[in-house]
Amino acid sequence: MATVIDGRKLAKELNQQTKERVAKLASRGIQPGIVVILVGEDPASVIYTRNKQRKAEKLGIKSILKKFPADVDQVTVMAAVDQYNHDDTIDAILVQEPLPDQLDGQAITNAIRPDKDIDGLHPTNLGKLYANQPGNYPVACTPRGVMTMLHHHHVELAGKNATIVGRSILVGKPMAALLNNANATTTLASRHTRDLAAATRQADILVVAAGSPHLIKAEDVKPGAVVIDVGINRLSSGKLTGDVDFEHVQDVASLITPVPGGVGPMTIASLMQQTVDLAEWRHNGQK
Amino acid sequence: MATVIDGRKLAKELNQQTKERVAKLASRGIQPGIVVILVGEDPASVIYTRNKQRKAEKLGIKSILKKFPADVDQVTVMAAVDQYNHDDTIDAILVQEPLPDQLDGQAITNAIRPDKDIDGLHPTNLGKLYANQPGNYPVACTPRGVMTMLHHHHVELAGKNATIVGRSILVGKPMAALLNNANATTTLASRHTRDLAAATRQADILVVAAGSPHLIKAEDVKPGAVVIDVGINRLSSGKLTGDVDFEHVQDVASLITPVPGGVGPMTIASLMQQTVDLAEWRHNGQK
Repeated sequence: MATVIDGRKLAKELNQQTKERVAKLASRGIQPGIVVILVGEDPASVIYTRNKQRKAEKLGIKSILKKFPADVDQVTVMAAVDQYNHDDTIDAILVQEPLPDQLDGQAITNAIRPDKDIDGLHPTNLGKLYANQPGNYPVACTPRGVMTMLHHHHVELAGKNATIVGRSILVGKPMAALLNNANATTTLASRHTRDLAAATRQADILVVAAGSPHLIKAEDVKPGAVVIDVGINRLSSGKLTGDVDFEHVQDVASLITPVPGGVGPMTIASLMQQTVDLAEWRHNGQK
Repeated sequence: MATVIDGRKLAKELNQQTKERVAKLASRGIQPGIVVILVGEDPASVIYTRNKQRKAEKLGIKSILKKFPADVDQVTVMAAVDQYNHDDTIDAILVQEPLPDQLDGQAITNAIRPDKDIDGLHPTNLGKLYANQPGNYPVACTPRGVMTMLHHHHVELAGKNATIVGRSILVGKPMAALLNNANATTTLASRHTRDLAAATRQADILVVAAGSPHLIKAEDVKPGAVVIDVGINRLSSGKLTGDVDFEHVQDVASLITPVPGGVGPMTIASLMQQTVDLAEWRHNGQK
């Protein structure tokens, strides 16, 4: 029976550390600030954005929600990014996905100042991560939170096989880069992968971010594997469930995250942690 | 018995195309230009640099060799990079590796203008590649040459397993990104990989860039696999050999590159091709 990672507890501990760092910055007259740019009224985005705001305020981080109607044009969003790029009270700029079709999300991402790019999506930050450059730069918060969980549970990574299912820029690719930088042998699988079970069964560390409920069954998992479930799917019953068949996979894995209460809370806690990082790096002139 | 890829023949064809593109640019009064910055007298680097120069001149590309003594300091090299960043007759800046210990190679790479970064090593270019962004940006020339070879031989990549042995920034990582972008399932192995044979035996496409003579034997290769050997090792006999035991692996593979005469010529041809790309992109104001 696998040990179940308590993401809520870990997130609470991390948030406590973040709060203390915010207090230290306050004594220097600095308050970290994050702006979330939200376009339209996508219900999941509205909820997620609200959660981020509440958490930020609770930790003493300045939080701004910049809302645009669903039919906003590119120039208007780009002007807002430019404004926050130059706003000294803002350390972190987050553009909530998904964006409506008329917007060029990539141009918006590339316009964010790399040192305010809280999601680590700017090519300069992603490239530094992929190159395993030393120094300070933001990394996507979900994979960062996963690394914190693995570290907390003393999961050995060097020389181990890590398979990542799903290759988004926000999760799969930075996750693969982080695991590779930790000297794991990484396999990046996607919906194109023909024999997904072969790719997952070789994994000592399996990270699933496919957005497909119960995609991974017990027989797809190597006995003793560490299984990290990034999926959050809402079933027709209203119940939240992951990409992993938790009930059965927990009999095979050695360590596993639940949904909800696993990766989710750690993502928001890592977002707060990194907002404070960005504030510290910028105010200390670190690179 | 595997079909042996004729890298010299393919390179010749590619160089012919490049020459024609140079001629077209000449009719607009444009000559593509490359500068190679060489520090010290490393014998392999001197030979490789000379080959690049000769090839460039033969194709009508302006070629400058900027030599520094082995004990040059950081400021001097950075000043040279800055000079060529602003030199309108230079489209491509290449800093020949290895660099002596007193130099910070990463700071030098990061100082090259991304649109003159012929090796695709700048984090902005590497990040765009990893993110699979559309648009024009340089990619490391060895993996680019490998993709040209695979394309020429109509190797199907989508859904196939690709294993890359070696994870350098110049070869392994951009190779993995290119194969992933072509929808292959990519595994990035390194010297930390515990069961290398398991990683290589699953590969439909196997790219080896480990710098270890005859690391890959026949029993490490899946029957029918495509085997690309990036290694160039000089044996004590003076003979050049690859990372793959060609003599025996050719009985197992369906398609294989020899050493010499495989990847090597394609790397230089791709370097020339990309120098002309950079000139065209810059002069056409493309992004």
